[in-house]
Amino acid sequence: MEKASFLEIAKSYKVIFFDSYGVVKNHRGLINGSPKVIADLKAAGKQVRFLTNDASRSPERQMKKFRRLGLNEIEEAEIITSGMMAKQFLENKVNSGKVAFLGTPASAQYIIDANLEALHISRVNLTDIEAISAFVFLDDEGFDWNIDINTTVNLLRKRNIPVIVANSDKLYPVAKNDVSIATGGIAQLVSSILNRQFIQFGKPDSQMFMYAFRHINEQAVSSKQDILMVGDTLHTDILGGNKFGISTALVLTGNTRAANVESMIRTTGIIPDYICDSIVS
Amino acid sequence: MEKASFLEIAKSYKVIFFDSYGVVKNHRGLINGSPKVIADLKAAGKQVRFLTNDASRSPERQMKKFRRLGLNEIEEAEIITSGMMAKQFLENKVNSGKVAFLGTPASAQYIIDANLEALHISRVNLTDIEAISAFVFLDDEGFDWNIDINTTVNLLRKRNIPVIVANSDKLYPVAKNDVSIATGGIAQLVSSILNRQFIQFGKPDSQMFMYAFRHINEQAVSSKQDILMVGDTLHTDILGGNKFGISTALVLTGNTRAANVESMIRTTGIIPDYICDSIVS
Amino acid sequence: MEKASFLEIAKSYKVIFFDSYGVVKNHRGLINGSPKVIADLKAAGKQVRFLTNDASRSPERQMKKFRRLGLNEIEEAEIITSGMMAKQFLENKVNSGKVAFLGTPASAQYIIDANLEALHISRVNLTDIEAISAFVFLDDEGFDWNIDINTTVNLLRKRNIPVIVANSDKLYPVAKNDVSIATGGIAQLVSSILNRQFIQFGKPDSQMFMYAFRHINEQAVSSKQDILMVGDTLHTDILGGNKFGISTALVLTGNTRAANVESMIRTTGIIPDYICDSIVS
Amino acid sequence: MEKASFLEIAKSYKVIFFDSYGVVKNHRGLINGSPKVIADLKAAGKQVRFLTNDASRSPERQMKKFRRLGLNEIEEAEIITSGMMAKQFLENKVNSGKVAFLGTPASAQYIIDANLEALHISRVNLTDIEAISAFVFLDDEGFDWNIDINTTVNLLRKRNIPVIVANSDKLYPVAKNDVSIATGGIAQLVSSILNRQFIQFGKPDSQMFMYAFRHINEQAVSSKQDILMVGDTLHTDILGGNKFGISTALVLTGNTRAANVESMIRTTGIIPDYICDSIVS
Repeated sequence: MEKASFLEIAKSYKVIFFDSYGVVKNHRGLINGSPKVIADLKAAGKQVRFLTNDASRSPERQMKKFRRLGLNEIEEAEIITSGMMAKQFLENKVNSGKVAFLGTPASAQYIIDANLEALHISRVNLTDIEAISAFVFLDDEGFDWNIDINTTVNLLRKRNIPVIVANSDKLYPVAKNDVSIATGGIAQLVSSILNRQFIQFGKPDSQMFMYAFRHINEQAVSSKQDILMVGDTLHTDILGGNKFGISTALVLTGNTRAANVESMIRTTGIIPDYICDSIVS
Repeated sequence: MEKASFLEIAKSYKVIFFDSYGVVKNHRGLINGSPKVIADLKAAGKQVRFLTNDASRSPERQMKKFRRLGLNEIEEAEIITSGMMAKQFLENKVNSGKVAFLGTPASAQYIIDANLEALHISRVNLTDIEAISAFVFLDDEGFDWNIDINTTVNLLRKRNIPVIVANSDKLYPVAKNDVSIATGGIAQLVSSILNRQFIQFGKPDSQMFMYAFRHINEQAVSSKQDILMVGDTLHTDILGGNKFGISTALVLTGNTRAANVESMIRTTGIIPDYICDSIVS
Repeated sequence: MEKASFLEIAKSYKVIFFDSYGVVKNHRGLINGSPKVIADLKAAGKQVRFLTNDASRSPERQMKKFRRLGLNEIEEAEIITSGMMAKQFLENKVNSGKVAFLGTPASAQYIIDANLEALHISRVNLTDIEAISAFVFLDDEGFDWNIDINTTVNLLRKRNIPVIVANSDKLYPVAKNDVSIATGGIAQLVSSILNRQFIQFGKPDSQMFMYAFRHINEQAVSSKQDILMVGDTLHTDILGGNKFGISTALVLTGNTRAANVESMIRTTGIIPDYICDSIVS
Repeated sequence: MEKASFLEIAKSYKVIFFDSYGVVKNHRGLINGSPKVIADLKAAGKQVRFLTNDASRSPERQMKKFRRLGLNEIEEAEIITSGMMAKQFLENKVNSGKVAFLGTPASAQYIIDANLEALHISRVNLTDIEAISAFVFLDDEGFDWNIDINTTVNLLRKRNIPVIVANSDKLYPVAKNDVSIATGGIAQLVSSILNRQFIQFGKPDSQMFMYAFRHINEQAVSSKQDILMVGDTLHTDILGGNKFGISTALVLTGNTRAANVESMIRTTGIIPDYICDSIVS
């Protein structure tokens, strides 16, 4: 673990995996200078991917949102969301039936793209649930927490079906000092109440890294030694990158602040290869 | 562990501690015949207490609700709620300031009775929290889960104050086959998100048993060998009674059904002294 | 929470509950000056009790050990061990049969004092276990961890009997910078492997505080407001004292050091009423 | 989920992933008829791989052990162990220094094969640990549990280095009705004591499935729809296979018995695509 300049260390890698929130953008918008950094990396022939624990909207919508913010260099194919892992699971393992979900209409796109019928939890009738073949936690918005989380608990007590958590993050920042409970937090509440283990997607799990790696690999440009994961969160970005066997750089523009980075690394035992102030320096 | 008649085994004890929900009443009202059983026990000189994991209303209101249902033999002093333990804690350890809470106005009575100012979570202004000296999870109703649970998380990130869970139950039944997430489930979500341990009251914790025991003892009628705890839930009523050192009887009119009682005892390792169909046979 | 002189604040209380290790003694012996502090408190008419998470030896042996170290003012009746809570449980709830245990011969005294037959785990024959009526985790010494912990797992898979953890501490210090896994750590391993919940005794659980309180109370000298718990460990001494409703003082001569006391209080949310350098200043 | 003949359903897949213990062999040796089943599958042009949570010996030694038992059709390249994932991690992320470990000399081969120096825990001197760059839990044998697990705890308190769990299983069977605590159980004890998260390899984690899939894929014969995972354990083989997106078959010759398969599926929520009595029918 060494303190380093991101721009300097990036030169040694052919591929950069970026976390999005806390790295490229924050609650105010893009981090100053980040579009130029991304553009320069691509101009230098490096491949970039954005690995984000998010199932609230499709990669296409995420790309458009990035562009609206001013990051024009980003392509839809460079965005890898945990929602895409959930969609893959549904395609591979759930062949028919209705898929009930917690989330917004935009998040339901992942179900629809798997050629399945999406059923919003508020439309579930607990006396008529035989046709429901899976359940997905997609987003923390788009439903009434009190009524709809309780409906979820009762649905899953009555139907033993695959349950997918499309974003395992427990919290996300909504302002400089304020946070909001995320999809993974709600899923954990239900999981704990039911004493059942759900299928979780998102960093630190290996599947998103594997997906990005295969995507890169098919273009025959990299081994794991050529890849750097950049993130602001020890227990998702850094733990996941370390376990996958790639280099990891922690930036201090998001969840981990300069004041407590040392104590957090010591208490968690999650050790990045590099610590960088930000991706723009 | 033996299958037994409750009416028969009750003869051997001078004091009976009853759980309320699933034992004396259920979602439809009083269990048929239970008022006569309570009346007969008292007529036979036995003392009874009702130990309930509940902070939604005061013992006085609970007594009145029991009487409205038809259980006239019950006195306010015979009702011991987990909310009373929270009130005691506030009296002993929180001397001044405002106490923020999640719950209904009726549940706030426990704070008011401790001579403290109750501040509903919806009235908390996150930029003005210095006067808040404690937080209590009282009830799962009376607030907007999405907005107010998130306010709770942010309040507790900013203020390191005592946090009390006045009812540690995670679930409660609302119909024959349906349940609702209870106060303890919501508290656990917040605790897990913050990675902090709260002060929890309610069975199986010893404090309610101790309170009831001292209450009885002061009347000089019992040792622990003279007391029987009757409940429908292994991990609250039976675990708590066993640990406190009193006899325990599991009834099959609530959370534990005849069909799975054996497997639940085997998998949990929580072993009642007696298993009874109900308190009326 | 305020920084304070122990000798000063002790004046305001009629009863002092002391944790033993890290407060009165450490791995080198008695903390310099502690015998005089204890003697002075008693001379001033205060009652003292020593509440220790320990089941490795009887209160009598603990008293003798204290005296050998030079603390002559201590009486056997002033020592309250978590082992005594386990003994009480056995007396109240296990009437006959053999009680298997992990620990030394000295620790088995708690079983013998409950008028039960103690059976060391190494003498358990897994094909002849019908007579075993309970199991107790007493001490981390006196057995072969590999062989005997595995025998424990297999015994408890085959016999559904009460399992008691007579000391829930996970670690204890054995030198300035070295620790050893304690009874509670071993019990947690077995509990996790079996997915069963055991009956645990020791701080922060209320039962030791209740026992000490009744012991004091019978001599009619105190209400909870008159009692101060002094300890070196946030999640046992301070959490337990707070929850029981008595005042709490954290000393910095054991598990919690001056350098990290603030961050530990912030991250755990366990807040002592006072912080004192030691009991001798 | 349907009850099915393994021999029948295997016809629909081009690739079969087998768990080893409880599927092909048990504590008595090979399951009767399993060599012929494997031979027939290979003769029919199917690829097979053996995915085993094991780091006690190298794939070469595992292959030789299989052959000694009578399974001659097996090749070293068909065996994928969780130890191989640990070796990969060491190769990718630990470039120099000594790697301390818990395990037998045979298990240390995984460290040596990563071109690193293996240091048995019993040879660690706690006053000279600066050269230790990683720690690996390899096997539950080959060390003194009491002394060496405590040395591990103290080493990891003093050195913040990557910690790898090369086999996350908590238990393994040693006789018809007896079990032994496995590497993952010991690692969990240490992790819980230190309150730190380790890097775990082995099913249900995706990395072994990914490794096997890439191995197959390079030979250009399969998509995920062509693969069947066969295992005896819901929370490793079946959960892992489901999450990876391949078909799963539970056999009843190991950890999951016919008598409780339905209740285990219901309580865990882990649902195999098929249930088969064994791989030989």
